[in-house]
Amino acid sequence: MFFASDNWSGAHPAIGAALMREQSGYANAYGASALDRKIEARFNDVFEREVAVFFVGTGTAANSLALSSVGRPGGVVFCHKDAHIANDEGGAPEYFTGGGRLATVSGDNGRMNPAALRRMIGRYPADFIHHGQPMAVSLTQSTEVGTVYSLDEIDAITAEAKAHGLPVHMDGARFANALAALDVTPAEMTWKRGVDILSFGGTKNGCWCAEAIVFMNPDQARDMPFIRKRAAHLFSKTRFISAQFDAYLEGGLWLDLARHSNAMAERMRQAFRAAKTARLAWETATNEVFIILPEEAADAARKAGAQFHNWPTPADQPDLIGEGEALIRCVTSFSTEEQEIDRFVSFL
Amino acid sequence: MFFASDNWSGAHPAIGAALMREQSGYANAYGASALDRKIEARFNDVFEREVAVFFVGTGTAANSLALSSVGRPGGVVFCHKDAHIANDEGGAPEYFTGGGRLATVSGDNGRMNPAALRRMIGRYPADFIHHGQPMAVSLTQSTEVGTVYSLDEIDAITAEAKAHGLPVHMDGARFANALAALDVTPAEMTWKRGVDILSFGGTKNGCWCAEAIVFMNPDQARDMPFIRKRAAHLFSKTRFISAQFDAYLEGGLWLDLARHSNAMAERMRQAFRAAKTARLAWETATNEVFIILPEEAADAARKAGAQFHNWPTPADQPDLIGEGEALIRCVTSFSTEEQEIDRFVSFL
Amino acid sequence: MFFASDNWSGAHPAIGAALMREQSGYANAYGASALDRKIEARFNDVFEREVAVFFVGTGTAANSLALSSVGRPGGVVFCHKDAHIANDEGGAPEYFTGGGRLATVSGDNGRMNPAALRRMIGRYPADFIHHGQPMAVSLTQSTEVGTVYSLDEIDAITAEAKAHGLPVHMDGARFANALAALDVTPAEMTWKRGVDILSFGGTKNGCWCAEAIVFMNPDQARDMPFIRKRAAHLFSKTRFISAQFDAYLEGGLWLDLARHSNAMAERMRQAFRAAKTARLAWETATNEVFIILPEEAADAARKAGAQFHNWPTPADQPDLIGEGEALIRCVTSFSTEEQEIDRFVSFL
Amino acid sequence: MFFASDNWSGAHPAIGAALMREQSGYANAYGASALDRKIEARFNDVFEREVAVFFVGTGTAANSLALSSVGRPGGVVFCHKDAHIANDEGGAPEYFTGGGRLATVSGDNGRMNPAALRRMIGRYPADFIHHGQPMAVSLTQSTEVGTVYSLDEIDAITAEAKAHGLPVHMDGARFANALAALDVTPAEMTWKRGVDILSFGGTKNGCWCAEAIVFMNPDQARDMPFIRKRAAHLFSKTRFISAQFDAYLEGGLWLDLARHSNAMAERMRQAFRAAKTARLAWETATNEVFIILPEEAADAARKAGAQFHNWPTPADQPDLIGEGEALIRCVTSFSTEEQEIDRFVSFL
Repeated sequence: MFFASDNWSGAHPAIGAALMREQSGYANAYGASALDRKIEARFNDVFEREVAVFFVGTGTAANSLALSSVGRPGGVVFCHKDAHIANDEGGAPEYFTGGGRLATVSGDNGRMNPAALRRMIGRYPADFIHHGQPMAVSLTQSTEVGTVYSLDEIDAITAEAKAHGLPVHMDGARFANALAALDVTPAEMTWKRGVDILSFGGTKNGCWCAEAIVFMNPDQARDMPFIRKRAAHLFSKTRFISAQFDAYLEGGLWLDLARHSNAMAERMRQAFRAAKTARLAWETATNEVFIILPEEAADAARKAGAQFHNWPTPADQPDLIGEGEALIRCVTSFSTEEQEIDRFVSFL
Repeated sequence: MFFASDNWSGAHPAIGAALMREQSGYANAYGASALDRKIEARFNDVFEREVAVFFVGTGTAANSLALSSVGRPGGVVFCHKDAHIANDEGGAPEYFTGGGRLATVSGDNGRMNPAALRRMIGRYPADFIHHGQPMAVSLTQSTEVGTVYSLDEIDAITAEAKAHGLPVHMDGARFANALAALDVTPAEMTWKRGVDILSFGGTKNGCWCAEAIVFMNPDQARDMPFIRKRAAHLFSKTRFISAQFDAYLEGGLWLDLARHSNAMAERMRQAFRAAKTARLAWETATNEVFIILPEEAADAARKAGAQFHNWPTPADQPDLIGEGEALIRCVTSFSTEEQEIDRFVSFL
Repeated sequence: MFFASDNWSGAHPAIGAALMREQSGYANAYGASALDRKIEARFNDVFEREVAVFFVGTGTAANSLALSSVGRPGGVVFCHKDAHIANDEGGAPEYFTGGGRLATVSGDNGRMNPAALRRMIGRYPADFIHHGQPMAVSLTQSTEVGTVYSLDEIDAITAEAKAHGLPVHMDGARFANALAALDVTPAEMTWKRGVDILSFGGTKNGCWCAEAIVFMNPDQARDMPFIRKRAAHLFSKTRFISAQFDAYLEGGLWLDLARHSNAMAERMRQAFRAAKTARLAWETATNEVFIILPEEAADAARKAGAQFHNWPTPADQPDLIGEGEALIRCVTSFSTEEQEIDRFVSFL
Repeated sequence: MFFASDNWSGAHPAIGAALMREQSGYANAYGASALDRKIEARFNDVFEREVAVFFVGTGTAANSLALSSVGRPGGVVFCHKDAHIANDEGGAPEYFTGGGRLATVSGDNGRMNPAALRRMIGRYPADFIHHGQPMAVSLTQSTEVGTVYSLDEIDAITAEAKAHGLPVHMDGARFANALAALDVTPAEMTWKRGVDILSFGGTKNGCWCAEAIVFMNPDQARDMPFIRKRAAHLFSKTRFISAQFDAYLEGGLWLDLARHSNAMAERMRQAFRAAKTARLAWETATNEVFIILPEEAADAARKAGAQFHNWPTPADQPDLIGEGEALIRCVTSFSTEEQEIDRFVSFL
C-alpha cells in the first residue's frame, strides 16, 4: 500500500536490465557515445519530427533549464497556481532564469483558465519595464492534481501564449500518464498543439533518473548544450541515462507502464465512487487519486501500513473538507499491484 | 586499450548489484530514505569525524555547489591553472558562485606553488573592492596531470589559505587514487591538513554517477540543502546514488579499485621508463600516464584500436615535445586489464 | 497641477547649491572623500546609533541590494501584495537575490496584516527544501497607497519576523513623509521597532538621485561594499551624492520638505472630504491622495493641464469604484504649491 | 597638482549650469521626458546613424550591462589583460553576464595583439561545451595605459571578432580623449570599424555621472530596457543625466574638454622627454602619463602636495624600473591647469 508518490518506487526490471548491459565495456563520455546518439534519434520517431533532445537527471533540471533557454531579463513565466515549478522546486526555475518570476494563474482542477491566463499576461504589458516582461507559458500535463488538459484545452492555452508571442513549455513529469489517459500520440499532445519545449519525464514512471528536455524546433536549442553544462547537468557516463530511455521506449514499455498505473488508480477511484464514508475529492484521469475520508479512517490505514500524503485544502474550495475529515493523495505507479489497491480499499 | 578517460568505463559489478537490490521496493524520496541516512552516516566512519554529506550526480555539481556554499559577492577562487574547475566545467563554478572568478596559480606538475598562491591572493587585498575579494582556495587531489600533493604540500597550501582566512576546497574527482598513491587515510589527507570541503568522487572509479560533497564541519553546510535543491541536483530516487556508495565503500572496494587502476598505470609507466622511442613526459603517481612518442607510433596505436587523447604542450615547457613527436594522455581505470597495458606497450 | 509622482519634480534649491559648491576642486573617488566620510557619519546622528551607510543612485538599487545582503539560496522575501519591490522594480529584487521569490501578503490599505504574514511564512517551513526558505520581511513605510504603519503596527510585523528568525527590511522611499506623518524620530520608527535594514530615500523628496542603504547593525554589512561594487552602483564621483545628502539633512531640511508635501496632500484631502461629486478612495497620511471622481471630471482636469495617474481598482474592493467613475492617484512633493492644489480642487 | 585620476575632478561649469536649468519644473520620470528623448536623438547626430542609447550612472554599469546584453551561457569575453573590466570592476562584468569569464589577451602598451586574440579565442572552440563559448570581444579606447588603438589596429581586432561571429564592445570611459588624439569622428572610430556596442563615458571628462550605452544597431538592443531596469540602473529623474549630456555635447564641449586634458598631458610628457632624472615609461597619446623617477623625487612631489598613484611594474617588462626608482601614473583632466603641470615638472 505504497501510495506516497510514484517516485517512491524503484525501477522497472527492463530498465535495470538495460543498465546491466551497459555495465561493462567502454563508451565515449559526455553524451557522445553511440548509444546516446541512437536514443536521441529515437525521440524523432516518438515525436514524428526532428527534435533536439537533452538528457538530464532530475525533473527540476528539465523544467528549470527548459525555462532558462527562453529566459529574458526581468522575465515572467505564467503557470497554474498549483504548478510544480511554482511550489516544489525550491526556487530552481527562478534561479536558472536569472531571477525570473512565476506569475500564477487560477483555474479549476489544476488547469489554467485561459481567460485568467490572458488577464495575468495583461498585467505585464510588453513595453512596461517596471513590471518585467512575459517570457513563457508553462503548463503541466498531467496536472499536479491528477487531471489532464484535453487537446482543446491545450489549444486554448497555447493560443493565448502565441497571441502574446510567448513560447510554451509543458512540464511532462507524468507525460506518459497523460498520453495514456487521452489516448493520443506525443505529437498530437505537443507540437501539433503549439507546445515548443517539453520536459519529458521517465523517473516517475519506472526509470531511476531519466528526464529529457525536448525542443520541437531544434533551432531554438542552440544554447542548450552550454546551459546544461553550466548547470552541471551533463553527466560523464551519459549512457546510463540513455540506457534507461532505451528500455523505456522499447516496444512502448513507457506507455504500458503508464497505462498500468492509470488503471490501478482507476481501480481505486471506482472503489471510492461507490464508498459511503469516503469519497473522491475530485475526478482524476491519471495515476493520482484524491480522497476525502474520516480522519480516523486515514489513521487506521496508516497504522495498517498504508503510505500516502495529506493534501492541503484547495484555497478556492474551503468547504470541500468536512469536520473530522482529511484530504489525502494516493499515487499509483508502474509497480502498484491490484492487491495493494484492494487491501487499501477494504480498509476504508 | 581504452585509455581515453576513466569515465569511459562502465560500472563495477558490485555497484550494479547494489542497484539491482534497490530496484524493487519502495523508499522515501528526496534523500530521506533509510538507505540514504545509513550511507550518509557511513561517511562519518570514513572520515573519522562527524561530517555533512550531500550526494549529487556529477563532479561538476560537486565542485560548483561546494564553491557556491562559500560564495561571496565579487568573490575569487584560487586554483591551479590546469584545474578542472578552470578548464573543463563550462563556466559552472563561475555561474554557481554568482559570477565568481577563478584566479589561476602556477606551479609545477599540476600542483599550486605556495609562493605563487600567496602572490596571487595578494593581488586581491581584503578591502580593495575594485578587484573583488578572495573567497576560497581549491586544490585538486590527485591533480589534472596525474601527480599528487604530498601531505606536507597540502599543508603548505592550506597554510596560505588560512593565513588569509579562506576556506579550502579539495576537488577529489580522483580522491581514491590519491589516497592509494599516498597510502594515507581520508582524514589525514583532508581535515587533518586543513581541508574544509571535499568533492568526493565515485564516478571515475567504478560508479555510474555517484559524487558527494563532504563538509568537514557540518555547521558550514547550513544552506547546502537549499543550494542543492535550487541547483536541481536533489534526485527524487536518491537511493540509486546511495546504493552505489553503499557498494563502493563496502569492504574498502573503492580503495581496491583505485589501487588497481594505479597499478595498471604503474605497469604502463614502467614500460615507458625503459622504452627507447617513447618516454614519460613526467612522472605521475596515480592512474594517468603522459607519454611523449613519435607521431607515427601514436597513429599506429590508434589504428590498432588504442584510445587516448592528445594533450596540449604545457605552456611553461614549450620545448618538452620534439619535432615529429606527440604528447598523449593515457588513463587507466578499475576495469583496465594487464593485457591491455601489455598489448599497448608492445605496440610502442 | 503636477501630481503624477513626486519624482517628476526636480531638486530643491539647497540640493543644487550643495552640488555647485562641490563642482570645483578635487576629491578622492569611489566613496573615499572627506565629504563622503562626513555625511556617512552624520547618519549616526540621525539614527542615534552607529550605523553602516551605503549610498546608491536609485531606490530600486537600495531595495534590491539591501535584500541581496540577506539573500539565501531558495530564499523568500515576504512583503505586501502592493509593495513596490513586488510590482514596480522590473524583477531587480529577484535578480539581485539570486532568484529569490517575493511572497506577497494581504492586508488593508497597503499594510501587511500580521496574521496573514504569519500564515504566509508558515507556507515555507524552515527545513522544507522544496518550497524554499524564508529570508526576510520587507515593509514599506509609508506604503504604496499613502498610508503609514503606526509604531505598534510595525512592532507587530517585526515580531512575526523575529519569531521566525528573519531580518526586517524597510523600504523607505518616502521615509521622511512617514516620519513627518507619525511625528516620531528615525530611531523610533526603525531599530527601536526591530527594523534591521532601511532603504533611506532622498530622491522623491527633493534630491536628484540620493538613496542610502542603512544597516542598523554595521556587523551585518560586511559584504555590502562588494555587493554594491559588483552591482555597478559605486559611483566614482560619490561626493555628488554626498553633497545632496549634506544639504538634505542640514538643519532638518528633509523633514521640512516632507512636512510640506504632506501638508499639501492634506489640503487636497480636506477639499475632497467636503466634495460632492468626488471623494477620497481611502484616507491617507502622507503625500499621496487617492480620489474617486466622475470620469468626465478626470478628463476635464487633464485637459486643464493637471497631471496624475489612474490607479487600478483594488482586487479586494471590486465595488469601490462606481459606474462612470475613475480612481486616480495624486502625489504632492516638496515643490507643490498651494495654488496648484486650490486650482485642481476648484476644477473638480 | 591633482593627477590621481580624472574622476577626482568635479564637474565642468556648463554641466552644472545645465543641471541648474533643470532644477525646477516637472518632467516625466524614468527616461520618458522630452529632454531624455531629445538627448537620445542627439546621439544619432554624433554617430551619423540611428543608434539606441541607454543612460546609466557608472562606467561599470555601462560596461557590464553592455556585455550582459550579448551574454550567452558559459560565455567568454576576450579583453586585454590590463582592461578595466578585468581588473577594476569588482566582478561586475562576470556577475551581469551570469558567470561569464574574462579571458585576457596580451599585447604591448595596453592594446590586444590580434594574433594573441586569435589564439585565445581558439582555446574556446565553438562547440566544445567543456570550455564555454566565446560571446564578445571588448577593447578599451583609449587604453588603460594612455595609448590608443589606431583605426587600423581597431580593424585588426574587429576582424578577428567577426571571423568568429563575435560582437565587439568598446569600453569608451575615455572615448573623447581617444577621438581627440586620433582626430577622427565617432563614426570612424566605432561602427565604421566594426564596433557594435560602445560604453560612452562622460564622467571622467567633466560630468558628474553620465554614461551611455550606445548600440550601433538598435535591433540588438531589444532587451536592454529590461536589462537596465533589472540591474536597478534606470534613474527616476533621468533628466539629471540627460541634462549633463545636453551640455556635454553642446557645441562640441566634450571634445574641447578632451583636447584640453590631452594637451595638458602632452605638456607634461614634453617636460619628461627632456628630463634627466625622470623619464616617460612609455609614450601615451591621451590624458595619462606614466613616469619613471627616483623614489625620492616622488616622495618630494607628494610632500609638496602632488597627488598621483604608483603603478605596478608591467609583468612583461620586469626590468623597466631601476633600483630606487618608482613608476607613477599622472592623469590630467578637463580642469587641469598649465601652472599645475609646470609646478609639478619643476619639482622633478
